Amino acid sequence: MSKGDQTRARILRHAARVASRDGLEGLSIGELASALQMSKSGLFAHFGSKVELQIEVLQAAAVDFEEKVVRPALKAPRGPARLRALCEAWLRWASSPDIPGGCIFAGASFEMDDRPGPVRDYVAEQQRQLLGVLSRSARLGVEAGLLRPDLDCDLLAFQLLGLMLGFHHARRLLRSRNAEAMARKSLDQLLAQAMPAH
Amino acid sequence: MSKGDQTRARILRHAARVASRDGLEGLSIGELASALQMSKSGLFAHFGSKVELQIEVLQAAAVDFEEKVVRPALKAPRGPARLRALCEAWLRWASSPDIPGGCIFAGASFEMDDRPGPVRDYVAEQQRQLLGVLSRSARLGVEAGLLRPDLDCDLLAFQLLGLMLGFHHARRLLRSRNAEAMARKSLDQLLAQAMPAH
Repeated sequence: MSKGDQTRARILRHAARVASRDGLEGLSIGELASALQMSKSGLFAHFGSKVELQIEVLQAAAVDFEEKVVRPALKAPRGPARLRALCEAWLRWASSPDIPGGCIFAGASFEMDDRPGPVRDYVAEQQRQLLGVLSRSARLGVEAGLLRPDLDCDLLAFQLLGLMLGFHHARRLLRSRNAEAMARKSLDQLLAQAMPAH
Repeated sequence: MSKGDQTRARILRHAARVASRDGLEGLSIGELASALQMSKSGLFAHFGSKVELQIEVLQAAAVDFEEKVVRPALKAPRGPARLRALCEAWLRWASSPDIPGGCIFAGASFEMDDRPGPVRDYVAEQQRQLLGVLSRSARLGVEAGLLRPDLDCDLLAFQLLGLMLGFHHARRLLRSRNAEAMARKSLDQLLAQAMPAH
């Protein structure tokens, strides 16, 4: 890594922590520069605008999610095992100390939903892709006869995402100690409902 | 209503629309004053601080939710009928054109979860009360024999709240046309699962 790449990575890491806590709109180039002991122009040399920085923070989180959640889960056998692996890795990822404010996409989804522009577009596109991964994983399970033939795969994807939003809400806002246990029980119920009748 | 009360109500109505779209942190006394053609000091005469305004906006939304969602639903017969009435009224409320940005508590829950202070405390307390209403409604249904004796009422409350967050996400961020239909199907599933075995 060149020195420039290292600086860039350091800015992004710090920005990701700020955004996970204060939201994407809470990212201020001035405050970032001061926290990182850089000049504002030095920071602007790496990111041309606040929007560019916001999108790169989200892109870095998306790459991390892909590496730590999606790719390992795709090694699990198709069907309910893979859906469970996806959701378990997702819960671990969302609880990681690296992202003290929890999943940045959960916050960004609510923060950005009424702010048209490239940041909102990026968040929506990422969330659609995630729903696609969930829905296709369910579809493969149906085709393999491991899940109910009449399963509504898009509905299950919607329910799994709602489950994760509920987990974020219980853990982050309510500081509930049961957040993870309730998320796991809900996951068990959703997967049990998706199994073929015996 | 006195003239002062009318002005106050007009400020709150406008602030609620802004906050539902831009978030509670998006409320700026200066911008509100300018949009309402008032002076900043005129506005401060009604609300001493931004935090006070934020909490009053939330209080007004809580009163509205109580009137339009909770109170009418409590007239439905206890058990599954009341839970359904609560969720149906909640869906209608969250889709109302009066709150163009959707449920202000959904947005505030994610916006405020890492911002300690009286606004966060108020949001968390309101959400706990809402979970309590849902959980107690389920408990009454269990006691009346209309819901499964082994139903985990707190878990069901968590799931219903997750369902509504998923609905907000699908409708507001993804602009999904199926958001309401998927929310209804999920509600049907959750209530079916909560019914006593035959």
